[in-house]
Amino acid sequence: MKLNCDLGESFGSWKMGVDDKVMPFIDQANIACGFHAGDPLTLLNTLTLADKHNVEIGAHPSYPDLVGFGRRSMQCSDAELSAMLLYQIAAVDGVARSQSLTLSYVKPHGALYNDMMKHDAIRQTILQTIAQYNQSGDRALKLMLQATPDLSMYQKEAKQHKVELLAEAFADRCYDDDGSLLSRQHNKAVHSEEAMLEQVQQLLEHGTVKTLNGNVIRLHVDSLCVHGDNMAGVNAIEKIRQLLTPFSG
Amino acid sequence: MKLNCDLGESFGSWKMGVDDKVMPFIDQANIACGFHAGDPLTLLNTLTLADKHNVEIGAHPSYPDLVGFGRRSMQCSDAELSAMLLYQIAAVDGVARSQSLTLSYVKPHGALYNDMMKHDAIRQTILQTIAQYNQSGDRALKLMLQATPDLSMYQKEAKQHKVELLAEAFADRCYDDDGSLLSRQHNKAVHSEEAMLEQVQQLLEHGTVKTLNGNVIRLHVDSLCVHGDNMAGVNAIEKIRQLLTPFSG
Amino acid sequence: MKLNCDLGESFGSWKMGVDDKVMPFIDQANIACGFHAGDPLTLLNTLTLADKHNVEIGAHPSYPDLVGFGRRSMQCSDAELSAMLLYQIAAVDGVARSQSLTLSYVKPHGALYNDMMKHDAIRQTILQTIAQYNQSGDRALKLMLQATPDLSMYQKEAKQHKVELLAEAFADRCYDDDGSLLSRQHNKAVHSEEAMLEQVQQLLEHGTVKTLNGNVIRLHVDSLCVHGDNMAGVNAIEKIRQLLTPFSG
Amino acid sequence: MKLNCDLGESFGSWKMGVDDKVMPFIDQANIACGFHAGDPLTLLNTLTLADKHNVEIGAHPSYPDLVGFGRRSMQCSDAELSAMLLYQIAAVDGVARSQSLTLSYVKPHGALYNDMMKHDAIRQTILQTIAQYNQSGDRALKLMLQATPDLSMYQKEAKQHKVELLAEAFADRCYDDDGSLLSRQHNKAVHSEEAMLEQVQQLLEHGTVKTLNGNVIRLHVDSLCVHGDNMAGVNAIEKIRQLLTPFSG
Repeated sequence: MKLNCDLGESFGSWKMGVDDKVMPFIDQANIACGFHAGDPLTLLNTLTLADKHNVEIGAHPSYPDLVGFGRRSMQCSDAELSAMLLYQIAAVDGVARSQSLTLSYVKPHGALYNDMMKHDAIRQTILQTIAQYNQSGDRALKLMLQATPDLSMYQKEAKQHKVELLAEAFADRCYDDDGSLLSRQHNKAVHSEEAMLEQVQQLLEHGTVKTLNGNVIRLHVDSLCVHGDNMAGVNAIEKIRQLLTPFSG
Repeated sequence: MKLNCDLGESFGSWKMGVDDKVMPFIDQANIACGFHAGDPLTLLNTLTLADKHNVEIGAHPSYPDLVGFGRRSMQCSDAELSAMLLYQIAAVDGVARSQSLTLSYVKPHGALYNDMMKHDAIRQTILQTIAQYNQSGDRALKLMLQATPDLSMYQKEAKQHKVELLAEAFADRCYDDDGSLLSRQHNKAVHSEEAMLEQVQQLLEHGTVKTLNGNVIRLHVDSLCVHGDNMAGVNAIEKIRQLLTPFSG
Repeated sequence: MKLNCDLGESFGSWKMGVDDKVMPFIDQANIACGFHAGDPLTLLNTLTLADKHNVEIGAHPSYPDLVGFGRRSMQCSDAELSAMLLYQIAAVDGVARSQSLTLSYVKPHGALYNDMMKHDAIRQTILQTIAQYNQSGDRALKLMLQATPDLSMYQKEAKQHKVELLAEAFADRCYDDDGSLLSRQHNKAVHSEEAMLEQVQQLLEHGTVKTLNGNVIRLHVDSLCVHGDNMAGVNAIEKIRQLLTPFSG
Repeated sequence: MKLNCDLGESFGSWKMGVDDKVMPFIDQANIACGFHAGDPLTLLNTLTLADKHNVEIGAHPSYPDLVGFGRRSMQCSDAELSAMLLYQIAAVDGVARSQSLTLSYVKPHGALYNDMMKHDAIRQTILQTIAQYNQSGDRALKLMLQATPDLSMYQKEAKQHKVELLAEAFADRCYDDDGSLLSRQHNKAVHSEEAMLEQVQQLLEHGTVKTLNGNVIRLHVDSLCVHGDNMAGVNAIEKIRQLLTPFSG
């Protein structure tokens, strides 16, 4: 199981996150593409930092909404959505190549991620777009999405487009019985550090998580999403890394 | 001698230019990258249109200034400039590849173009950035700049970076004795259609232009820049195309 | 009955609409505030043009979405929505005052307008914000919304906030039996010029419109919304103006 | 002598500065207007915070450049500059009024501030714009600019426009013999805390500053500019406040 984190989310003079502290502990960096965060120089510096720590690179595309940080759903046509995905993936892929780095996957950001999990048509558009990019550009970009108890529908869709999936679980979020995350409105939505470490441990040992109601659900998980917004987050990531180490090749 | 034109300069609901009328008559499309104009869907549609008419594709990067249409110089650090060029070139290159098209060259836009011609350091940064992009991405992007009576300095610089140059002249602009364009402030800055066609004819037959003062200067020209903002412009382009035809391979 | 039109929707170098042709025929200009269209200079010029033709001025605030022209709903908190309304109203109001002009009303734009008609909470936030602006700024800005068969609920809400309403009908849109507009997806959504003029005539003479199904519904209408995107639209506005003239004080 | 500080410079999810720590110690808040920083909700919250601490409010307008934080000069026409100033002043003024607060002054930001001090035409445009806003809006907004050894020319200009000036010195910046600030490139450009406190003390007691070369120049200063980007800056502001207290009415 790998660790992934959203990075490169500064913008111009505004800094966000402690990327240089987080990077040593993670395996996969989801890098902002400029639509919800991340100007070109931030992108370039984040890629360089990922390279230094041998971290896999993912594009983290978003709806175009800087002031809302990509957290608001925006009703776009399929053509608009596909074009904005191509643009953002292309930008990160090309800047990465200019540094002799290779883009590995795509993880939609914020509201686009939620819309992808909820709406079949949006997920189709995302898969088609990645497939198109892979085919003509000789790439094999994967799509990172949320691990759910039954991934078979997603896997079938992805197979049709010859796009490989990466399923991610959330280290610090409480799960509901159906495998969805509790809404952030809910007061138990985000785990304490202790509960988070327990959740990670259980995933590692048993491939399961305990839900809000105490039930146990099985999740196939390729990667764990962690948050590096501040030093407390970084410390938690370090602890999760220690839990993972015995399980790493 | 080829014809090039700035295209893809619509933005969202705002249309600019008559791209579909211009495209049949030109050889090279300088396509906006999203920083002065051109949203992702406009970019994608412009690439498709270029493909339909077998038009060569160039990236047309700019300072980040939508409301000013990239016409205002912005003092950026070398690192910022290089990163914003990489980002824009990568975006157009990658979206083009996703449509099985190939990016051929880079032509800076507006204030960035002027700054490139005036400031050695900016031209160096542009050349270095293209060189870096070419080298690691297995590309051979050329740089389009303004034809001047003596290109040798530019050619020497470009050779150092192994970047090929494309020198362009302006069909409708009046030249000064030193090979610079008359400022748009000057009332003779822009030729009438008749004077424009004469200037093109002279360039084709003799490789020279007549300056404001009636002197004749020699210009090595790979491409002629034309403007397709409206139907009058399109008609002029069609006439220039007719002049060029006997000289085409 | 007055005529209102969305104006000032150019942005930087991109022109939209033929404001100078439309302004002579209308009574109320809904002026873009910079969030979906309209840069500061466009705003200033539009205000000056409205003044020249003695046209009433309304602020036309939007969700922050230039590339989407404010046509995409964005889920904002009440606090965000209220703040963005205050900002946009204040900007237009203050620039108008600097030209010795007076802002009269607010008409939300695009997706925000639709959300206002659909969602009570959004309409409440809009009314509260206008009330707050009126109270502390010694203004009496009205709110323009869509005329529906029963305005009583809206009037009650508005009265609580001491905000006066302006109800507008759409000259060229086909109505459904419940007083809503047919979706633009529907092939009969937009009237021919002839049907539009009939609809206006019927509203003027009888205060009613004929719906898609041939039923007749009563609408209290203070203002008619017309569109001046191109010269065909301007010609239609001129004809509507002629219909209205006998009914004007 | 008063203390002023640039505040409200967060943007959406990006935080900048510790406004709530700084506000208790200052007299005048220069509040970002949305062009280099500051979204509507940040603006509203900053105004509320200023009100809570009885801090005077100034508009802090900028060139339109979020990614560059308004630090890059942009060549605008007089009409564009005037319109963008009107828009930003109006926005802050109107949002302030909606909270029953009163805007007192205008302090241009970043590159616009520098351009105002260097270029007569830009200063004229700024003065004219404020004059226009004051006259038609029944306001008496002052202009804050840099204290220089001889303010007479600025005062004459301002008097012609009936705009009052506020001259500010910089607590932590080293002065050159001509009263200008040492470029930030210079390694002595920014004082240590000790040197800063000495400079403030000397200004308070003698109305003079010691320059880089050890000379003493006289400055008429209405306000001292301080920086609250982080807690070290806040501590320094608190110490400066203590120096000022004996001199306060």
